[in-house]
Amino acid sequence: MSYQDDSLALHTDLYQINMAETYWKDGIHNRRAVFDLYFRKNPFHNGYAIFAGLERVISYIQNFRFSESDLAYLKEEAGYEEAFLDYLKTVGFTGNIKSVCEGEVVFGNEPLLRIEAPLAEAQLIETALLNIVNYQTLIATKASRIKHIVGDQLLMEFGTRRAQEIDAAIWGTRAAFIGGFNATSNVRAGKLFGIPITGTHAHSMIQAYRDEYKAFTKYAQSHKDCVFLVDTYDTLKSGVPNAIKVANEFGKRINFIGIRLDSGDIAYLSKEARKMLDEAGYPNAKIFASNDLDESTILSLQAQGAKIDAWGVGTKLITGYDQPALGAVYKLAAIEDENGKMQDTIKISGNPEKVTTPGMKKLYRIVNKNNKRAEGDYITLEAEKPDEEKRLKMFHPVHTYISKYVTDFDAQYLHHDIFVDGKLVYECPELKEIQSYAKKQLDLFWEEYKRTINPEDYAVDLSQKTWDNKMENIRKVRRSYS
Amino acid sequence: MSYQDDSLALHTDLYQINMAETYWKDGIHNRRAVFDLYFRKNPFHNGYAIFAGLERVISYIQNFRFSESDLAYLKEEAGYEEAFLDYLKTVGFTGNIKSVCEGEVVFGNEPLLRIEAPLAEAQLIETALLNIVNYQTLIATKASRIKHIVGDQLLMEFGTRRAQEIDAAIWGTRAAFIGGFNATSNVRAGKLFGIPITGTHAHSMIQAYRDEYKAFTKYAQSHKDCVFLVDTYDTLKSGVPNAIKVANEFGKRINFIGIRLDSGDIAYLSKEARKMLDEAGYPNAKIFASNDLDESTILSLQAQGAKIDAWGVGTKLITGYDQPALGAVYKLAAIEDENGKMQDTIKISGNPEKVTTPGMKKLYRIVNKNNKRAEGDYITLEAEKPDEEKRLKMFHPVHTYISKYVTDFDAQYLHHDIFVDGKLVYECPELKEIQSYAKKQLDLFWEEYKRTINPEDYAVDLSQKTWDNKMENIRKVRRSYS
Repeated sequence: MSYQDDSLALHTDLYQINMAETYWKDGIHNRRAVFDLYFRKNPFHNGYAIFAGLERVISYIQNFRFSESDLAYLKEEAGYEEAFLDYLKTVGFTGNIKSVCEGEVVFGNEPLLRIEAPLAEAQLIETALLNIVNYQTLIATKASRIKHIVGDQLLMEFGTRRAQEIDAAIWGTRAAFIGGFNATSNVRAGKLFGIPITGTHAHSMIQAYRDEYKAFTKYAQSHKDCVFLVDTYDTLKSGVPNAIKVANEFGKRINFIGIRLDSGDIAYLSKEARKMLDEAGYPNAKIFASNDLDESTILSLQAQGAKIDAWGVGTKLITGYDQPALGAVYKLAAIEDENGKMQDTIKISGNPEKVTTPGMKKLYRIVNKNNKRAEGDYITLEAEKPDEEKRLKMFHPVHTYISKYVTDFDAQYLHHDIFVDGKLVYECPELKEIQSYAKKQLDLFWEEYKRTINPEDYAVDLSQKTWDNKMENIRKVRRSYS
Repeated sequence: MSYQDDSLALHTDLYQINMAETYWKDGIHNRRAVFDLYFRKNPFHNGYAIFAGLERVISYIQNFRFSESDLAYLKEEAGYEEAFLDYLKTVGFTGNIKSVCEGEVVFGNEPLLRIEAPLAEAQLIETALLNIVNYQTLIATKASRIKHIVGDQLLMEFGTRRAQEIDAAIWGTRAAFIGGFNATSNVRAGKLFGIPITGTHAHSMIQAYRDEYKAFTKYAQSHKDCVFLVDTYDTLKSGVPNAIKVANEFGKRINFIGIRLDSGDIAYLSKEARKMLDEAGYPNAKIFASNDLDESTILSLQAQGAKIDAWGVGTKLITGYDQPALGAVYKLAAIEDENGKMQDTIKISGNPEKVTTPGMKKLYRIVNKNNKRAEGDYITLEAEKPDEEKRLKMFHPVHTYISKYVTDFDAQYLHHDIFVDGKLVYECPELKEIQSYAKKQLDLFWEEYKRTINPEDYAVDLSQKTWDNKMENIRKVRRSYS
């Protein structure tokens, strides 16, 4: 069924509303709560991730309201009582959100967003925030890995038909652009986000004319810029010769940009096609490749000396194929008690990596003033001021013997105020600026952290106080049941 | 940027519009074209797939129109000429679509949708159709695999936070329901599709009260139906004892439905928790499990004798984790020539499995009248009538020596008319009916095709005429360039 007043307020897990009801009945729904949104491990065994999703989160939060039909549904299907529904009717987002900015280089266990809001509100928005940030950050990271391999060559996003439904196609290509892609085939993404659009023709055009030469000719008659797809019948015997023939015949009436290979042995075909194009007098004609590419296949093609100038990447990018979910979580770090005082909270787990870090926290990047490279990221409690320290002890939060002292550093605070008391106080940069920011931030990191296979672990450390506080909270909880 | 008149007409690859322009300039844009939408291999090494996505396709087609801002964007960014834009302004879908129905059991290389429309129209809708059908069919199939393993136990979709953006969460849970899931945590999906919603509380509720017993008590005070999540601190030492304590204290004032395990060694914990619940006098209390489950982990838990009654499945379902893209394609099968006659078309490829099957085709299921089991699926040319045959020769379309004769069969035609001359002529069944249909259709197949590991290959055969026609088309094309 479709609703005129469809909203995303119900785009949440039922348990969030049930918990809100418990809090509301108990009168604690407006207690101040602090949640951290973070993932535990960098995706794709990568050395870092690229944060994305904030713009969509902002729009979600600004429109966060239960509509009439939402409330009617909750009444009828979930059987909530009238007074609770009356409360839900009034709910909007009135809290604070801090976030790293889109394009930021981020790592496992870093608070990417910090939500400080009335308990029920903070809970109700959890699911949508995770849904948005998990996907967009995943794809921006995948894109960044691919960008790392292709360097300055042209990278085109071709994934819409294989994306996981419509939103993924649109927001995925935006995330890919943040990660370093240059263009997309998705026209709507071009319109919505200003991403350059790209594409010429498909195999079906050759089939529609049932004659490759004729099809190329017709395309050249109707388009100045020509990239001919040459593998509909036989790449070297038919496709490339026909492309050259049409380029010869049209001469300066077209820009013969090049050819695209989409199947077969791309390494071999590209080398042979390169020779044919060169011999025909088209040394500047480019060879585009597509067909289930990702950073591994591109690396392999490069190693084989494939003659590719531009890459179209679809399925493997837009779905994050080798790891299609990021796994970010949203955990309560502190809550106001009955006396109005903030109390830290912790979740312990049989899986040690799932133990949370209690307290209101800040995220810093410690940058060496001399070489301008990042020494590590540093998580502190709210009151700490690492930027005023002369000398920092940084140590591994699990293997604590791994430690170092850092001096002569800049402590760059990575959180930005996005919402304050429910009001948007942040202006989203243009998408191009976000892409440039990601590129600039990556320059802070040594190459060892950025290689796509077996990167070095980058340090994400807790301050001594944050660590001590975590240990104390673990002890307190364990005392309670042992 | 957001637009008042945002439409999905631009949710397509740029090359589709470029090809439409070529056809329009050449005056062939209204020639009748026939495209098949199909995937080549069943996903997840499964023996079959469950088709889903038709309802969304219908809504997309019904709204297929370029809006003012779409046309303005195309003019400004893609530089199309005014006359072509005037043509695009008039474009809607005026053709025919046949499709298998949602919930149908389908296989690789079967035409799931057959689009017969003016060439340019058929081309413009390709990308969106693939985007929708690829994802929803993938997830319905994944769900069906999981359902196959759990049998009649309760299956809940918990994936929203890990879904690939918002649409995937919503349409993915609908597809999961088609594949056999019973309920979802996503409230909006409940509202939009009438799927039962489910969920109680999260770890954060325990943390918010900083006392597990107190948190369970508060939940019980505000909710009749109680499933307590018992792994926030320590499942067996704290969680289960507190759940039992609260159940004892509240007695008949609540329905103590059971507990949920979400981390740790689920096999061990479930057995221990079962004993504790039984000893406390709650033999009917159910144990729910979640935590990165899929058909493999569930099978393993079953083999270990885990005492689980209900399953919450998230990430691995909603992303189709082990194969996050289906790879369906959309290929031209026939086109009207300059004399108004339909001509078959083919695409040849260096990859033999990518060669298309030319001609307007129909899809049948050959069901043995005696045992009511499917003997194989059978693809014919338009004029053939296998339902009127007494005896059918069925043979493998690649390894042609594998053949059999079938008699005493029903040839069930699997395509339904969806659009005729642009008009919707199909009424979508209720979602519950689609789920029942999928279940009923699966009964047609021997267990050997349905096991989740190493299933037998089900026969998807071409009629002799379809096969002969394909070979003839291959010969014709190869003569043209050799």
